[in-house]
Amino acid sequence: MNTGIMKKRVGLIRGCLKEKRLQGLVVTKQANVTYLTGFPGDDSWALITPRSMYLITDSRYTEQAAKECFGCKIIERTGPMTASVAELVKKSDAIGLEDSTSIATFYALKRMVVSSIRKTANIVEGIRETKGAAEVATIRSAAAMAFKALGRALKQVRRGVSENELAGIIVFEMGRLGAGSSFQPVVAFGPSASRPHHRPGRSRLKANQPILIDWGAVYKGYCCDMTRCFAFGKVTRSYIRAYKAVCEAQQAAIKKLRAGVLIADVDKAARTVINSYGLPIYGHGTGHGLGLEIHEGPVISGKVKGRLKVGQVITIEPGVYMPGRLGVRIEDDFLITERGCKRLSAEKFVGFEGQNLPPMISA
Amino acid sequence: MNTGIMKKRVGLIRGCLKEKRLQGLVVTKQANVTYLTGFPGDDSWALITPRSMYLITDSRYTEQAAKECFGCKIIERTGPMTASVAELVKKSDAIGLEDSTSIATFYALKRMVVSSIRKTANIVEGIRETKGAAEVATIRSAAAMAFKALGRALKQVRRGVSENELAGIIVFEMGRLGAGSSFQPVVAFGPSASRPHHRPGRSRLKANQPILIDWGAVYKGYCCDMTRCFAFGKVTRSYIRAYKAVCEAQQAAIKKLRAGVLIADVDKAARTVINSYGLPIYGHGTGHGLGLEIHEGPVISGKVKGRLKVGQVITIEPGVYMPGRLGVRIEDDFLITERGCKRLSAEKFVGFEGQNLPPMISA
Repeated sequence: MNTGIMKKRVGLIRGCLKEKRLQGLVVTKQANVTYLTGFPGDDSWALITPRSMYLITDSRYTEQAAKECFGCKIIERTGPMTASVAELVKKSDAIGLEDSTSIATFYALKRMVVSSIRKTANIVEGIRETKGAAEVATIRSAAAMAFKALGRALKQVRRGVSENELAGIIVFEMGRLGAGSSFQPVVAFGPSASRPHHRPGRSRLKANQPILIDWGAVYKGYCCDMTRCFAFGKVTRSYIRAYKAVCEAQQAAIKKLRAGVLIADVDKAARTVINSYGLPIYGHGTGHGLGLEIHEGPVISGKVKGRLKVGQVITIEPGVYMPGRLGVRIEDDFLITERGCKRLSAEKFVGFEGQNLPPMISA
Repeated sequence: MNTGIMKKRVGLIRGCLKEKRLQGLVVTKQANVTYLTGFPGDDSWALITPRSMYLITDSRYTEQAAKECFGCKIIERTGPMTASVAELVKKSDAIGLEDSTSIATFYALKRMVVSSIRKTANIVEGIRETKGAAEVATIRSAAAMAFKALGRALKQVRRGVSENELAGIIVFEMGRLGAGSSFQPVVAFGPSASRPHHRPGRSRLKANQPILIDWGAVYKGYCCDMTRCFAFGKVTRSYIRAYKAVCEAQQAAIKKLRAGVLIADVDKAARTVINSYGLPIYGHGTGHGLGLEIHEGPVISGKVKGRLKVGQVITIEPGVYMPGRLGVRIEDDFLITERGCKRLSAEKFVGFEGQNLPPMISA
C-alpha cells in the first residue's frame, strides 16, 4: 500500500476519534492492525492518537515491522501488551478499545490505565467495508490465481482421490502461483456436500459422485472466496434440478446488485428462486463482505436493514442442501458500483454450455 | 472421544461451577466447545448447566452436530447466539462467561439476560492442559504424519523452488496422509529465517542457502508443531555454530523436563547454552503447550512462576536469530511425565550424524 492511502485511512480514524471525544483508539483485531499500519503479522496492536500511530509488537516481529510499516512508531514490548498501551496513553482522558477485544484484555487494561476506556464498535471495520481501487485489484488477482489453481487441480481429479488430497492439491497449486489459501478448502464428495462447512476427510471419490469445492486464495493479504460444483461422471436428475435452481438463484441475486439497493432484497431474490423450485431454503446468508478477512461486512441476509454501497466487495452464494442426498452451492465475488456490480471471480466452471448444467469431469 | 471421557470433562466443569456458585457456564472459545461436546465446527457455543449440556449452533451445522455430539442437546439458533443463551438461562441467578469472549458479546448478553454474568478465566483451558492417553496418542499420530509428509516434501526440494511452493507441498503431503495443516507452514530460505514467524513468499531457493521449516499436522482436531533446519548445499561456519548451539540448547531444556520442575528453569537451561556461545538470545518463549489449539497452556518462559505437571504436552523450541544473516530453530513436542518426559515428535532430521550438524539436502 502506498503511504497516501495509509494516511487517508488513519485520517478517517482520527475524524472518528474527534467526534467521539477520544484521545486514542486501541486496535486489537489483526486485520484492522494490518489495514492501518501495513503490518501483516500476528500478536500486534496499533494505537492511533491524534498525532501519532504506534505498532506494539514483540521481538519476533520487530525486524519485519521496521521493513513493512511506514509512518508508525514501533514499540517492542517485553511485558504484556496492556502494559505498553498503558504507558503510551497515560496522559489521555478517554481512549477507545475495539469491542472485538476479549473481556480479559478489557479488564486488564482497566486496571492499568488511568484514562476511561470506552468500547467502540465497527470503527475500522466500517471504513474497511469500502474498498479502494488497489484493494479491488488485489482481490481480483487473488481470484484469478484461485481459478488457475483450481483448473490445474481439476486435471488431477481421479477416482480414489480423497477429499483431503484434493484440498491439498488446491492449496499446493495456489502456493505455486504465489498465493496462500484464504481458508481450509471445503472439498465434499457426494452427499457430504449437504453440510455447508464440511471439512475434507479421508473419503475417496467414487464414480458418479458430484464434487463441491469451496476455496479461495489470499494474495497480498486479501481474500477471495468461491464455490463450484462438478459432476464426476453421471449425476441424478434431482442433482441437475438443484444445480439449475442454484444457478438461477445466484443470477437473480446478481441482477439486483447495485449501490442503494436494500440488502434484504438481494437475499430475497435468491431465495424466491429456490422456493419456486420447491427446494429447501438454505439456512446460511446469501453472501458476505470480504477483504482482509474472509468474512467481513456487510452481511447479505434477509434480516439486514441496510443498503448496498459503492465499493463494497461481497459474495453471492445461494445453495440447496438435502441431508444424506446432495448439496449444491455456487459462489462468486462482486464489487458494488453506482450502476450495478463488477464480477471479480471468473464466470468459469459454472452453468456448463449456458444451460445451467454442472461442468463434467470425466470419471 | 468416548462418552466416558466427555462425561468426566463435563463433571470437572460442573465441580468448578458449584465452587464458584454459578448455574451455568457459557463456553464461546471454539476449542473449548470441541473439548466438551466433541463438535469440531465453527460458530457454535456450549452451555453447561448442573443438569444439561447444550450446543448452540446454526443450520449449517445441525446435521453434523447431530452426528458428532453425544449427550448434548442441540439448539439450532435462528437469531443471534446471545438470544438463544438468554432463553436457556432465564431462570439462573448467575452464569459464567469465558473471559476470552469479546466485549461486544459480553454487553449484548448483559442486555438480554436477567442473571448476573461473571467472567471466568481458564476453567476449560485449565482442564485441557492435562492430556489424557487418547489425546497424547492423537498428537503422536499427528506428529508421525507430519514427519512422513516432510520426508516426502524434502525429496521435491530443488534449486528454484519457491517458499510458497514448498509450503504447499508440505500441506499437500499431509493432506494425502489424511491430516490437515495445524497452521500455515513457515518456510524460510537463507536470511529470511531470522524472522521467527516469516510467511513463505515468492523467493526461490538458491544453492548454498539453508532452509528453515516450521510446520505441523492437525489430526482428529489435535495439533503438533515442529521446526527443522536443513543445509541446501554448503553452509557457513557461523551457521553451523548457531545450529550446534540450538541443538545443545534444546537438549539442555529437554533434560530438565519432569513434573514438578520450575518452568522458568527449563527456559533458563536453553538460554544459558545460547549465551555460553555468545550468540543473541531469542526473544520468544522456549515453548508452549499444544493440543486442540496450536498455542495453549502452559507457556514455557522465564517469567512463568509455575511448575510442570504430569500430562502437559509442550514444545521446546530455542532459536538463534541474526537479522540479515541467519536464523536457526529446532522444535519438538513432549509429554511431561512423573519421571521425565516422552518425546512425541520423531528425533529425525536433526543433529545429523550425532554431531549437531544440520541435515544436508544435496543442491
